[in-house]
Amino acid sequence: MTEPIEARAETFFRELQQTICGALETEDGTALFRADEWQRPGGGGGISRVLTDGALFEKAGVNFSSVHGQLKPDFAGALPGDGLDFFASGISLVLHPKSPMVPTVHANFRVLRRGEARWFGGGADLTPYYPEREDAVHFHRAWKTVCDRHDPTCYPRFKKWCDEYFYLPHRQETRGIGGIFFDTLQRDAERDFAFVRDAGATFLEAYLPIVRRRRELIYGDRERSFQLLRRGRYVEFNLLYDRGTTFGLKTDGRTESILMSLPPLVRWEYDARFPPGSREAQLADWLKPQEWL
Amino acid sequence: MTEPIEARAETFFRELQQTICGALETEDGTALFRADEWQRPGGGGGISRVLTDGALFEKAGVNFSSVHGQLKPDFAGALPGDGLDFFASGISLVLHPKSPMVPTVHANFRVLRRGEARWFGGGADLTPYYPEREDAVHFHRAWKTVCDRHDPTCYPRFKKWCDEYFYLPHRQETRGIGGIFFDTLQRDAERDFAFVRDAGATFLEAYLPIVRRRRELIYGDRERSFQLLRRGRYVEFNLLYDRGTTFGLKTDGRTESILMSLPPLVRWEYDARFPPGSREAQLADWLKPQEWL
Repeated sequence: MTEPIEARAETFFRELQQTICGALETEDGTALFRADEWQRPGGGGGISRVLTDGALFEKAGVNFSSVHGQLKPDFAGALPGDGLDFFASGISLVLHPKSPMVPTVHANFRVLRRGEARWFGGGADLTPYYPEREDAVHFHRAWKTVCDRHDPTCYPRFKKWCDEYFYLPHRQETRGIGGIFFDTLQRDAERDFAFVRDAGATFLEAYLPIVRRRRELIYGDRERSFQLLRRGRYVEFNLLYDRGTTFGLKTDGRTESILMSLPPLVRWEYDARFPPGSREAQLADWLKPQEWL
Repeated sequence: MTEPIEARAETFFRELQQTICGALETEDGTALFRADEWQRPGGGGGISRVLTDGALFEKAGVNFSSVHGQLKPDFAGALPGDGLDFFASGISLVLHPKSPMVPTVHANFRVLRRGEARWFGGGADLTPYYPEREDAVHFHRAWKTVCDRHDPTCYPRFKKWCDEYFYLPHRQETRGIGGIFFDTLQRDAERDFAFVRDAGATFLEAYLPIVRRRRELIYGDRERSFQLLRRGRYVEFNLLYDRGTTFGLKTDGRTESILMSLPPLVRWEYDARFPPGSREAQLADWLKPQEWL
């Protein structure tokens, strides 16, 4: 007898967390993840894994959760399905490298059920401080390759969805150079799950080659200072617009796990400007939707 | 002929900005405010004044604005009055001292009009890192005194409103030790304006004596680190819950002026905990609504 898809997805996400954390520890070389297991009063729980002050990562957070219970009525309306019964399981990660030359990355894969409706969602996006075209191409190619294996129409759609989702209207810029984003996938559940498994397994190969190319680059106070400033945009996006953060806080999620995505050190400067032509000023050109492949 | 109340309020707020900035420069002793005058494309404009890297203030932002135009329909519903025509003028300030021994403070006074409806709002609240009872008492007494001069029923109401407004549900704590908060004052306009004038003029005497008592205290890395962590709560409140921020961003306000309230340097740490009985752990007891007088 085959297990229900929710149970298999939960197992997959839990194992993916271990695989990814193991690989990131190896890559970091000095620091280890601590793991916190937690229970959600309304039902379910999760494991939050955080690595801090590593040689490579200043803060790396990888969450696994599997929660269920009753949705708040005013929030349920925004979701597919009927009733207030819900189940949600997934993995969510944000990696903040110490070096400003290494991009920040976010990825998330999840399954949700409300009443009889079940859907998958997820994606990954890259936020460089000093962007390099070959990194953007590598990242997007990795996601296009996995998309194409399942449905050649999905990369263009999911890439566009990512550009639209990770957008800060008050700054008129995207959060980074994008990637893929998809939500409410409700086609054939086995087919959707196969895609999500494949996408989850792609994360390390999409990101680590970029890390290896950039981690040894020399930088100074100027680059560090710019990184801290740009991290402020990350905070603005997550607290003002991110639906994952909203969903977590509105379903009485575990605050420390939800806000694990926030960078370790952040700077805000009034009306910061950079000399025309500087790499800092040029970042603005990267933060507009464009075709990388 | 008497000028319309909006014009007189605008003049008052503009002059209050100058008075407060002048006093803060004197108090700081080393740094000066820079002033940016800006126009709002939809109508009106303002003057943003920012002082950074002073001896006393790491970042002090004092905004004056007077804007008008058309409200966005989906936002107008939340306001008194009819139609989409609006006018808003006010002063808003957030002072982030360099020393963790000196509390952060926020104050805001404003007049709004939508169609035929006109109302005043405002308040002030204090956010200490290492709180002292005599500071909390001083701050609340200053606001109670000005309230009592106008209407003895208003301090208890405005104090409670402040505790309720500056509350972070996901942290189950208030932003600081409160103060007063009031909105949609629609009694006699001249009487409301007289109260707002008096309250605005009270700001310096409510705050500066606390600064003078605390600014010379010795502190080290431990206190500085705690201050940066607590500043994260300030960011969380402003971006997740603050209606002023929301109003500004939704009325196409000037982003740099709206986000001037954010602290200059901020730290997030996963699940930070402090030894029981330490002053850091004790702060939690202060962040619950209580009577200070």
